[in-house]
Amino acid sequence: MSDANGKLHLEDFAVGQQFHAGPLDVTEADVIAFATQFDPQPFHLDHEAAKDSLFKGLAASGWHTAAMTMRMLVDGGAPIAGGIIGAGGEVSWPRPTYPGDRLRTMTEILEIKPSRSKPTQGFMKVRTTTFNQKDEPVQILTANMLAFTKPA
Amino acid sequence: MSDANGKLHLEDFAVGQQFHAGPLDVTEADVIAFATQFDPQPFHLDHEAAKDSLFKGLAASGWHTAAMTMRMLVDGGAPIAGGIIGAGGEVSWPRPTYPGDRLRTMTEILEIKPSRSKPTQGFMKVRTTTFNQKDEPVQILTANMLAFTKPA
Repeated sequence: MSDANGKLHLEDFAVGQQFHAGPLDVTEADVIAFATQFDPQPFHLDHEAAKDSLFKGLAASGWHTAAMTMRMLVDGGAPIAGGIIGAGGEVSWPRPTYPGDRLRTMTEILEIKPSRSKPTQGFMKVRTTTFNQKDEPVQILTANMLAFTKPA
Repeated sequence: MSDANGKLHLEDFAVGQQFHAGPLDVTEADVIAFATQFDPQPFHLDHEAAKDSLFKGLAASGWHTAAMTMRMLVDGGAPIAGGIIGAGGEVSWPRPTYPGDRLRTMTEILEIKPSRSKPTQGFMKVRTTTFNQKDEPVQILTANMLAFTKPA
C-alpha cells in the first residue's frame, strides 16, 4: 500500500479512513511568541489583559492553532506521498486553545476525487479535528488536499 | 463614528465598506523560519528541493500567508473595537506566496448580523483578499467576525 516512507498515494486512500497525530504541548511562551509576530492583540499576549476578554484568559491565536495542527499533520497525521498540499478549505474554532493544552489531531477522508484532466493526481476532501486534552474540539478544518497516484 | 483609537463598533459598519492594509514584505528567512516550526516540508524549506515541486520554487506555507494576513489586519486592516475575533471561515490560496513578495490586504464587509440573544454584539461576514505586488490574490478569506456595539 504505502511507499518506502510509509506515505500513501491517491489509490491507497478510502473514504472513512482515519489518521491520528500528536500530542503537541502548547506552552505559554509559544502562544506569546506567535501572537507577538502575527496576532498582537492583548488577549493573545498578556494574562491580565486577557482576563476581561471573551477568552477569560490568555488564549492562542486561531492561526496559531491552525499552524500547530499543520505541524502535527506533517509529522504523521496525513501521510500523503508528495506532501500535504491544500488548496484551501473551511476552518472553525469552536473554543480557544490555552497555554498548557495538549493537542492531537484526528483526520478523516470524506471524499476522493480523481482529476479528470490530470490522470496522475486528484483531490481528497479531508476533515481534521484538533482536540485538546479534554477531548474537546478546538479546531475543525475541512480541506481539499492534493494527492498523487502511484508512479507507473 | 470611531472611538478614541479609531476603532469601529458594530453600528459603524456598512455592507460594502472596504479597508486596506499592508504592505508586508515576505523574506526568505521568514518563510523558512515559519516552515521550520509549523510546516517542515521540502518545498517550504529549501530552494533546490522546491524547484521540482508543484510550486516551482521555495514557497511560503499557506498558514504563513494566513498568519501574515492576520498581522496586517491587526495593524489596521480591520479596525474593529474590541479586537479582531473570528469564529472561523473559508480560506483559499489561489497561488503561492514567494519570498520577495510584498503583500497587502483588502477587506470588504459582506453582511452585518446583530445578535438576537446578545444585544451588545453581532457578527459580520467579512472577505479579506491578500494580494501580492502584481495584484494577484494569494489568499481569499471569508470569515465571521465578532463586533461589539457602542457602550450605552
